[in-house]
Amino acid sequence: MGALGVIAGGGALPRSIAESARTAGREVFVLGLGGYAEGWIAGFPHETVALGELGKAVKALRAHHCDDVTLAGKVSRPRFAEIRLDAKAVLAAPRVIAAALKGDDALLRAVIDMFEREGLRVIGTAEAAPDLIAKAGTMGRIAPSTQARSDIAAALEIVRAMGTFDVGQAAIVCDGLPLAVEAAEGTDAMIARVASLPEQIRGTRDKPRGVLVKAPKPTQDRRTDLPVVGIETVRNAHAVFLTGLAVEAGGALIVDREAVVAEADRLGLFLQGIAN
Amino acid sequence: MGALGVIAGGGALPRSIAESARTAGREVFVLGLGGYAEGWIAGFPHETVALGELGKAVKALRAHHCDDVTLAGKVSRPRFAEIRLDAKAVLAAPRVIAAALKGDDALLRAVIDMFEREGLRVIGTAEAAPDLIAKAGTMGRIAPSTQARSDIAAALEIVRAMGTFDVGQAAIVCDGLPLAVEAAEGTDAMIARVASLPEQIRGTRDKPRGVLVKAPKPTQDRRTDLPVVGIETVRNAHAVFLTGLAVEAGGALIVDREAVVAEADRLGLFLQGIAN
Repeated sequence: MGALGVIAGGGALPRSIAESARTAGREVFVLGLGGYAEGWIAGFPHETVALGELGKAVKALRAHHCDDVTLAGKVSRPRFAEIRLDAKAVLAAPRVIAAALKGDDALLRAVIDMFEREGLRVIGTAEAAPDLIAKAGTMGRIAPSTQARSDIAAALEIVRAMGTFDVGQAAIVCDGLPLAVEAAEGTDAMIARVASLPEQIRGTRDKPRGVLVKAPKPTQDRRTDLPVVGIETVRNAHAVFLTGLAVEAGGALIVDREAVVAEADRLGLFLQGIAN
Repeated sequence: MGALGVIAGGGALPRSIAESARTAGREVFVLGLGGYAEGWIAGFPHETVALGELGKAVKALRAHHCDDVTLAGKVSRPRFAEIRLDAKAVLAAPRVIAAALKGDDALLRAVIDMFEREGLRVIGTAEAAPDLIAKAGTMGRIAPSTQARSDIAAALEIVRAMGTFDVGQAAIVCDGLPLAVEAAEGTDAMIARVASLPEQIRGTRDKPRGVLVKAPKPTQDRRTDLPVVGIETVRNAHAVFLTGLAVEAGGALIVDREAVVAEADRLGLFLQGIAN
């Protein structure tokens, strides 16, 4: 088996994937995206490319014998007019730009195609770093209540219905009432606004209520952009007095699982993997 | 035809209904909900009741010969434990409380039933004040662009899909990308958060983009709680650089239409009624 190429955007996820694959005994090469990838890439064989440098990227991945490539981390939606394209990128650009107009899913799909046309196999996190994928069942010491289980089911239905429109991947339901639905603002911003809702319909310091559910869009290419839960997600959920978090088993990533579970236990939140 | 009873919560809507019905030549009696209804009710034959005073409410409506009753205006979700119930309300309470646990739609349905059990006919705004209901077509001087029409269609699909879950009644889409979906926070808060999204995916002062769509939930009893557009909605949409607003014709209320259309024209926004 050749090396794993991790194409790294911002945030903690690409680091977790790279570390997990290395721990499992695989050679790892990191291709950091300039302006996004963070300092940790210095701990791996690595190179940095700009967004428009497809030729350079492919060359580097081949030079490091990357049979498989995985994409991870945050990249803000680029202004195409401001990207300097190298020769190979110029050829790929029309397809990618056309896809970008159709939404996030189509854009990611086009970027994956772009690498596959170069003969690289693009794999998802589930394959690159299987131990990051959420499993079914209660992960910490606290189990969801009957009410929480019913709210989880309702929130999951909402996320799935919304997913067909390429909207967000998360929703919050409290005692049957949908409090917040994610679109373009991101999960943390969605969680935060629960605090500004009237106290009658949400949890309080004395009486936590409500659950956060994250699940992938049904339309989503599972090789990239799976919903992620990290220690900040747990802290944010606690800050707005939710009783816990649930994710779709096999369809979400827990970054730094041991720390996440420990924090959920410490704060009194459940962390549940929903079986499919 | 007897009088129209307007059971009035907060905001401008109940006043518009009462004025519209009076202008149309009908006798109007206003039953203001204490803590919610505003000073304007003094301009009408009126009485004020607290939330738990069902017996007093029914007596007042009958005394003023109200054949028809309509409910309008904002009432925050009450803490049932804090409501003092009169004798009639005690009998109705279990049903209403049970419904409240199922969501806003069920709660409203139960409140309507409560009045109908007393022999009062509960009618919607469409019947009580037909001229407030949005009609199909372009209301002001500005027509939606082709892109805006496509965004309207996408946002409408989202609102309808969400409506089956008793979530919100509004969504914002910009160039195909869903920016915000309303849940419990209300339309104004949903519009406001568009300003905090990255500039690449939304409109700017120089280049407005994106549309707001409001439409009733498919599950909704249309006799109450139709989505409302007022002058503030137009101003808020303009403040986050949207190009216009669309509502479902026959399924939304325009409060103070002349002023709303004039403001949309002045700010350069379209105001569109979507034919069903």
